Amino acid sequence: MLEIVHNPKMEALKVIKIGGKIIENNALLTSFLEDFVKLQGPKILVHGGGNKATEIAGKLGYETKMVDGRRITDKDSMEVITMVYGGLLNKSIIAKLQVKGQNAIGLCGADGKAIISKRREVKEIDYGFVGDIERVNSGFINSLLKQNIVPVFSAISCTEEGVLLNTNGDSVASEIAIAMSKIYETQLYYCSEKKGVLKNIEDDQSVIAELNSDNYKELVNSKVITDGMLPKLHNCFQAIDRGVLSVFLGDAGLLGSNSIHTKIVE
Amino acid sequence: MLEIVHNPKMEALKVIKIGGKIIENNALLTSFLEDFVKLQGPKILVHGGGNKATEIAGKLGYETKMVDGRRITDKDSMEVITMVYGGLLNKSIIAKLQVKGQNAIGLCGADGKAIISKRREVKEIDYGFVGDIERVNSGFINSLLKQNIVPVFSAISCTEEGVLLNTNGDSVASEIAIAMSKIYETQLYYCSEKKGVLKNIEDDQSVIAELNSDNYKELVNSKVITDGMLPKLHNCFQAIDRGVLSVFLGDAGLLGSNSIHTKIVE
Repeated sequence: MLEIVHNPKMEALKVIKIGGKIIENNALLTSFLEDFVKLQGPKILVHGGGNKATEIAGKLGYETKMVDGRRITDKDSMEVITMVYGGLLNKSIIAKLQVKGQNAIGLCGADGKAIISKRREVKEIDYGFVGDIERVNSGFINSLLKQNIVPVFSAISCTEEGVLLNTNGDSVASEIAIAMSKIYETQLYYCSEKKGVLKNIEDDQSVIAELNSDNYKELVNSKVITDGMLPKLHNCFQAIDRGVLSVFLGDAGLLGSNSIHTKIVE
Repeated sequence: MLEIVHNPKMEALKVIKIGGKIIENNALLTSFLEDFVKLQGPKILVHGGGNKATEIAGKLGYETKMVDGRRITDKDSMEVITMVYGGLLNKSIIAKLQVKGQNAIGLCGADGKAIISKRREVKEIDYGFVGDIERVNSGFINSLLKQNIVPVFSAISCTEEGVLLNTNGDSVASEIAIAMSKIYETQLYYCSEKKGVLKNIEDDQSVIAELNSDNYKELVNSKVITDGMLPKLHNCFQAIDRGVLSVFLGDAGLLGSNSIHTKIVE
């Protein structure tokens, strides 16, 4: 059993997810990593994959299979994801962090049994090698944090039967944050191409500064928040409900000073 | 400074390298990993790559560049090596170990600054992204061993400037063994396609059971040991000279009981 310690004096743990659009833009990635290195206190990075996997799969002659507009991760795709997310992108980020003086370690869910998942049940659609997270090994992750080593996760989890699974990066970040919130006061950061939740989808500057469950419901009812943002915000409020202190949504500059962003609280 | 403790009661640390020929043969790999999991005491695995990288590079349309019969690791090749060795093979081995109940973590030299190297100097030939190891972070590796987590290294090192480099797998294993011998009594195991050092190159059963620096010199002088075996054995005796207790050379069954092999001692 893990000892659960909420020490208000302890610096908050920051779990930060960067999306594929940042990963594949060298200038954005470099400036993001500069801000990331400057962050004080314990921190964890989770990264998506961007288009590199699709590009490599295409070059290898693997077909991208889609059903109802959703990608199917077959065996070949999973091999490419393991190569590109788990190898190329993950290790390149580690090398970039090391040269900036930030000790870090690149992981997937199989390493240290960090992220154990179940293969998604086949109902109408078989999504293939896709996992839903069952548990996060917070003790192992904490042992790295205590050595001042930043864990950097690719969005790959592993079943109890040793099968590597493609896993939603946002969920990897939120499940890690939820698990770690038993040990640390934990904040969750999502960096994507948007500056935050917008009041007007046409106006990138119309960022809602703060959301709580009350004004969130109002904005959903009045249809200000719709479509793609709904599952993401559902995820955010779930994290808050399950112990995460606050969630921040912003772009690649989210960790910098004076960033415009959306903060989500209880 | 690391405290140097030679505790004779402490179980010896085993550093084991498996060659590409074992990695790419599923039956051999499975049986090797079964023996590996049964090994008692602290252990570290180092793996080569086999032909998978060449196969993927070929499919991607990358040319394999050779100069004087030696492979040149250009930027594209290094990308493939990072994908295939650092991602696909490394994480697949970790998943296979986890399902056998062996907690493990997949690493390259950039992770935890575990293996720092220098890019090989350009003399007549520019080998490209190829590294010679400068130092091994034994403290970091030991922190994993103390948690009963087996470190599994792909043969990739990293420069101080954050450049990932293709590195000879035998050297990765021997440099790790040498560094760890400051903390543990350390044994080094090389598993390849040969059962050991042969008296007669035509006869796979003519394995020399034990080599020390005296009978080694005799066998070199009498030309029993020649060619490809010379650099490998030079490496082995260097490891012994620099603190490693003993080195074992054998095939995929080296860790099993009753294996025929060559043992190298001082």
